[in-house]
Amino acid sequence: MKRIKLADMTWMEFDARVRDENPIVLLPVGSTEQHGPHLPLSTDVILPEAVSMLVAEALGAIVMPAVPFGYKSQPKTGGGNHFPGTISLDASTLIAVLRDVVNELARHGVRKVVLMDGHMENQWFITEAIDLALRDQRREGITDLRVVKLGYWEFINAETEAVLFPDGLLSWALEHAAVMETSVMLHLRPDLVRADAIPNNPPADFPLYDIFPFDLAPIPPDGVLSSPASATAEKGRHVLGQVVPDIVSALGKAFA
Amino acid sequence: MKRIKLADMTWMEFDARVRDENPIVLLPVGSTEQHGPHLPLSTDVILPEAVSMLVAEALGAIVMPAVPFGYKSQPKTGGGNHFPGTISLDASTLIAVLRDVVNELARHGVRKVVLMDGHMENQWFITEAIDLALRDQRREGITDLRVVKLGYWEFINAETEAVLFPDGLLSWALEHAAVMETSVMLHLRPDLVRADAIPNNPPADFPLYDIFPFDLAPIPPDGVLSSPASATAEKGRHVLGQVVPDIVSALGKAFA
Amino acid sequence: MKRIKLADMTWMEFDARVRDENPIVLLPVGSTEQHGPHLPLSTDVILPEAVSMLVAEALGAIVMPAVPFGYKSQPKTGGGNHFPGTISLDASTLIAVLRDVVNELARHGVRKVVLMDGHMENQWFITEAIDLALRDQRREGITDLRVVKLGYWEFINAETEAVLFPDGLLSWALEHAAVMETSVMLHLRPDLVRADAIPNNPPADFPLYDIFPFDLAPIPPDGVLSSPASATAEKGRHVLGQVVPDIVSALGKAFA
Amino acid sequence: MKRIKLADMTWMEFDARVRDENPIVLLPVGSTEQHGPHLPLSTDVILPEAVSMLVAEALGAIVMPAVPFGYKSQPKTGGGNHFPGTISLDASTLIAVLRDVVNELARHGVRKVVLMDGHMENQWFITEAIDLALRDQRREGITDLRVVKLGYWEFINAETEAVLFPDGLLSWALEHAAVMETSVMLHLRPDLVRADAIPNNPPADFPLYDIFPFDLAPIPPDGVLSSPASATAEKGRHVLGQVVPDIVSALGKAFA
Amino acid sequence: MKRIKLADMTWMEFDARVRDENPIVLLPVGSTEQHGPHLPLSTDVILPEAVSMLVAEALGAIVMPAVPFGYKSQPKTGGGNHFPGTISLDASTLIAVLRDVVNELARHGVRKVVLMDGHMENQWFITEAIDLALRDQRREGITDLRVVKLGYWEFINAETEAVLFPDGLLSWALEHAAVMETSVMLHLRPDLVRADAIPNNPPADFPLYDIFPFDLAPIPPDGVLSSPASATAEKGRHVLGQVVPDIVSALGKAFA
Amino acid sequence: MKRIKLADMTWMEFDARVRDENPIVLLPVGSTEQHGPHLPLSTDVILPEAVSMLVAEALGAIVMPAVPFGYKSQPKTGGGNHFPGTISLDASTLIAVLRDVVNELARHGVRKVVLMDGHMENQWFITEAIDLALRDQRREGITDLRVVKLGYWEFINAETEAVLFPDGLLSWALEHAAVMETSVMLHLRPDLVRADAIPNNPPADFPLYDIFPFDLAPIPPDGVLSSPASATAEKGRHVLGQVVPDIVSALGKAFA
Repeated sequence: MKRIKLADMTWMEFDARVRDENPIVLLPVGSTEQHGPHLPLSTDVILPEAVSMLVAEALGAIVMPAVPFGYKSQPKTGGGNHFPGTISLDASTLIAVLRDVVNELARHGVRKVVLMDGHMENQWFITEAIDLALRDQRREGITDLRVVKLGYWEFINAETEAVLFPDGLLSWALEHAAVMETSVMLHLRPDLVRADAIPNNPPADFPLYDIFPFDLAPIPPDGVLSSPASATAEKGRHVLGQVVPDIVSALGKAFA
Repeated sequence: MKRIKLADMTWMEFDARVRDENPIVLLPVGSTEQHGPHLPLSTDVILPEAVSMLVAEALGAIVMPAVPFGYKSQPKTGGGNHFPGTISLDASTLIAVLRDVVNELARHGVRKVVLMDGHMENQWFITEAIDLALRDQRREGITDLRVVKLGYWEFINAETEAVLFPDGLLSWALEHAAVMETSVMLHLRPDLVRADAIPNNPPADFPLYDIFPFDLAPIPPDGVLSSPASATAEKGRHVLGQVVPDIVSALGKAFA
Repeated sequence: MKRIKLADMTWMEFDARVRDENPIVLLPVGSTEQHGPHLPLSTDVILPEAVSMLVAEALGAIVMPAVPFGYKSQPKTGGGNHFPGTISLDASTLIAVLRDVVNELARHGVRKVVLMDGHMENQWFITEAIDLALRDQRREGITDLRVVKLGYWEFINAETEAVLFPDGLLSWALEHAAVMETSVMLHLRPDLVRADAIPNNPPADFPLYDIFPFDLAPIPPDGVLSSPASATAEKGRHVLGQVVPDIVSALGKAFA
Repeated sequence: MKRIKLADMTWMEFDARVRDENPIVLLPVGSTEQHGPHLPLSTDVILPEAVSMLVAEALGAIVMPAVPFGYKSQPKTGGGNHFPGTISLDASTLIAVLRDVVNELARHGVRKVVLMDGHMENQWFITEAIDLALRDQRREGITDLRVVKLGYWEFINAETEAVLFPDGLLSWALEHAAVMETSVMLHLRPDLVRADAIPNNPPADFPLYDIFPFDLAPIPPDGVLSSPASATAEKGRHVLGQVVPDIVSALGKAFA
Repeated sequence: MKRIKLADMTWMEFDARVRDENPIVLLPVGSTEQHGPHLPLSTDVILPEAVSMLVAEALGAIVMPAVPFGYKSQPKTGGGNHFPGTISLDASTLIAVLRDVVNELARHGVRKVVLMDGHMENQWFITEAIDLALRDQRREGITDLRVVKLGYWEFINAETEAVLFPDGLLSWALEHAAVMETSVMLHLRPDLVRADAIPNNPPADFPLYDIFPFDLAPIPPDGVLSSPASATAEKGRHVLGQVVPDIVSALGKAFA
Repeated sequence: MKRIKLADMTWMEFDARVRDENPIVLLPVGSTEQHGPHLPLSTDVILPEAVSMLVAEALGAIVMPAVPFGYKSQPKTGGGNHFPGTISLDASTLIAVLRDVVNELARHGVRKVVLMDGHMENQWFITEAIDLALRDQRREGITDLRVVKLGYWEFINAETEAVLFPDGLLSWALEHAAVMETSVMLHLRPDLVRADAIPNNPPADFPLYDIFPFDLAPIPPDGVLSSPASATAEKGRHVLGQVVPDIVSALGKAFA
């Protein structure tokens, strides 16, 4: 049996895999962030970890332990960092963690790394971490390392969008703790979804700018940016059923 | 005559303005980034600076010297940092500059600051800088500082979009050095637009992931992400004519 | 049912718990480090996480997601960072992660934090992180935060030591991937122990100094510092059976 | 027409210049600092930028956008950072900006860089930035980069000094917002000089030490360290007329 | 006469030594830390400096100026950082100092460096400094630098332990300002020992965890962790008489 | 007997002094830098330490252990960092050390600190360290800390200058390892001056700019910037005899 999780391997198994297979290694990058009254704080860890596992299974890849803390939640994408339980890192900290991990993988001979993002707020800091790690590796004489960054939600195609939102998508920006995430959680971890607490409120309506300290007025008090009432496990299954093979195929090309 | 640019004021003028008027202070945050064969490297400085000046005129606000260097250009939003002349800062550097400037304004008594972004890649680093500056100020006992972050392009409304793209918008993501920016530059600084070099190529087509080091294959070799051929000064005039009053109005509410 | 893992809670549950109970929050601080041919790379995550869960159950405490990466493995305590699969952080990165997390907990009202170390190399960096977080909080006006740092192995008492090592303990320093860790893993996660690969070699013999780059000569090539051959699940059960109530009792006093 | 400002060039023009001419690139390093009741806050940007443009014209060099913020103004050289409108950077920030910009120029193939200082307080931080950038480049395998640091005022010779101060120079240290700077500003930007506000007070008299927080007693309340009353545009013209060709000649030798 | 202290050499002497002898260079890493009512704040500087001098004499090595400030004193190993006169560095500062010094030695051609620790709290930060300096040197193309870290007290053997503690050692952890340090100070610098203030109190009794802010209850109010009443100069002489030749011999092997 | 050196005090003596006398505490800030063929690498430590001791004696002040490493030697002020034996710190490291030490003194109740510089290159980094420490203390609620920065050589008056240079001073900038430093060393530590190696070469002649990497052409190969041939111990005695009481008097005013 070939193990997928780096955490479960012995160092000898990992070493043999790297030397023999030049495998892709996926690092789920999550967050501990409020996801409304119905989803757990770990939603943004569970989702990229699950996608990574499925992708890895298909590709013979390895999945790292997820980074459980991400960048500060913002009102328009996550409700905001003020919600209790939201545990975030400074930008410099998140960049440092990701940079170190990529460097360590490269040190052990890995040449194909994927940073699988589960939290929109992480995106640009992932980019910087990769840029700095590539700089470090260049100075170590390593020039054949390739690193892919992706957000699994970016791979949802029009057909799946129609399944998720038969009446039309309001806005991806408002999908925090809404139909898509709730559906996939209902599919993957129904035990962690408080089905009776799924809210059904009108969508948030934000101004075109951001203001700090946050203006709490436009932020829904439950932290849900648009209604997840139409979420179903079936929709969640559909999302993964489409997204996972598409990511598999994309990574095949990316590391060709 | 009331001056708008902080650079042009003496310290006594600035001091009087701050004490008497509690003015809004705008900081244009730009970049030095390739903008195709027809637009200058300073495009992302000129645009937010011009918008800031017009907004300030209407609001009696003050405009700071623009930050001329921004975050590293990315293929999907700016062609990429590899284009010659693209002079970018590390994330930590950009964050530090903006944090210091906001802190300095607060130290002198300013309580309403706007970071006017001209470069998409700057966005999240602006957010972090503001968050850190607010933390600093809190520790200095200052709790009434408010800071707005905005990208002027976010204020373009559906009607203006229709003016810019009578045949429909392809994608805002591909608007780098394209119709909107070229139009506004033709309106503001026709002397800096190489009209005879405006290209007319098909739009870039990127994969759903990002890969580092950049895969140059999908990046148009001239650095223009979609065709600016239909740009006109008149369209540029229209953009500013709509966006500026809308920003003026938004800031009025933000700092109410 | 009261949940123990912060990851499983909604923000509202966490918030209520903090406001109503002033709970202890435990953060397992692990590492991804070689543990010989028989134990998984996640050994130093699994152990403090398990101890934290048991302690939390007894105390009504909350357990955070474990920090899965720790400080660089050293020959005398972990075999060394050169073993494949050992993914470590720079000191500044580890300090930053722990500092941020403690600060975030304090921000949300938590006043009793435990950093439960699972990896000897983490110790001093945990100390620095706590010191810096307390400094930060002091500057935020928070002075009633108390943070405990502990290594669960420090609580093993003489009686348990006799159970583990009926022929006498060689040295705690050489217990990496040896009797104690293997026994507790056999008890907790037998599925992750390669029973047939448990080695039985003489203990490592290191000089009194450390040398960098590592001198590989005194390091056992399998990464096991002394023989785990006498490990049993029963011994592991005994360790937890003694250590957990003692930690529970110690924390009771620490936060009295 | 060959453009001088990098800001005005397209990336293709810049690229061609670098490949074909191996040009000198000048980076004006300024500050936003009080300059008395008569000079604008941007005085230390305007002067090095003007000198850079004149030097570049003579040398076929390229001028970068000026760094508009510098190190914290000190009483003995600039009146002090407490004067309103003085917007300064922490040392680490200023060093980072300059280091990044030099690194970016080197990345694009530039091998001759001049950091043209306009603010005495910047000097040592410029030195550190250059030292760190050269270290970075060395690690990238680039060893033929040469970087010159200069303060344009250092080039004022005895003859020009006699023109500026027919009754003898009091002290260069007290020339902040005084005869030299006011004269060059009257020559370059008379529109920004409040001629009617030019003060005529006795020079500042500082102790031999520095004390922090600043002792305000010896600092002239208007921020002018010695009288600019004898400043004239003609003197300003003379300064540039001497200094510019001397810098041109010096750079010729420096990069020979 | 061959000088031992780098401080006393001219640059030409140092240069000749490095080129001709490839010498070992020792850097004493101390602290300024409370050592009870009887020992000076510099105890942790004096001891590693003295050991370094004796070792260097035997080996023809060079001794650097000691680093006089170390990491924050902790209750269980030093009484704690709250004792007046204890002047400590942040972890990042201490790491930076040691990293810079090792890098500078390497730059001048030194290839054998010893960091001679005099303060338990410094240990892990020394490790990180060495790791980072080796990384820096690797990127400079230097791969033959070897750095040894040692605490002189680690070399005390069983026989010397019996001399120091004829009634048995209580615990090395409690030896702060106790028999060993007091004895060596009585031998080396009796002028700095307040013989009449040597306390004789029962040993400290700490819990198995650490708590922050420090719980002052278990910390002896005079800062002495166990009684130094049995200290003698003769014991101190014995310690050095055993430890120094053993370190000499160990370094001979380490740099063979 | 009242001790002057903090290093020699017990914590109780220091504590009593701070509480009873609110003493001035002096921190000598030195460097390990080439000083020609005749002076030791520690010249810039010995001189500020000696001045500090004499000043402290007169004022009842306390002297800290000197910081033995300073900022990178520059050609025009110290010959340059390339001279063997010159062991320098990065700017960020030097700033951090000084900031930490000032913060620690303030934490223990000291309110009057003097940073006594012995190395010209340290100056601006001392300024930044003080500024940052004052910021830190402000955030700790401490607002009555005063910190003086001084270079002892700044206090040499015209009369002493005439004693040192009966034929006229060439330039203070060229006094590195020259008449003044050599004279004071001959007075204080004749054992460390290689009298037979005192050179007598023409002064260095530098261009008006600085270039990096250093241009070695204008740097005297022995590292001495102007001839120390006329140095005498008597001149050295005279310097201290004038400078010390003047600093004593200045500090009396500074902390009045």
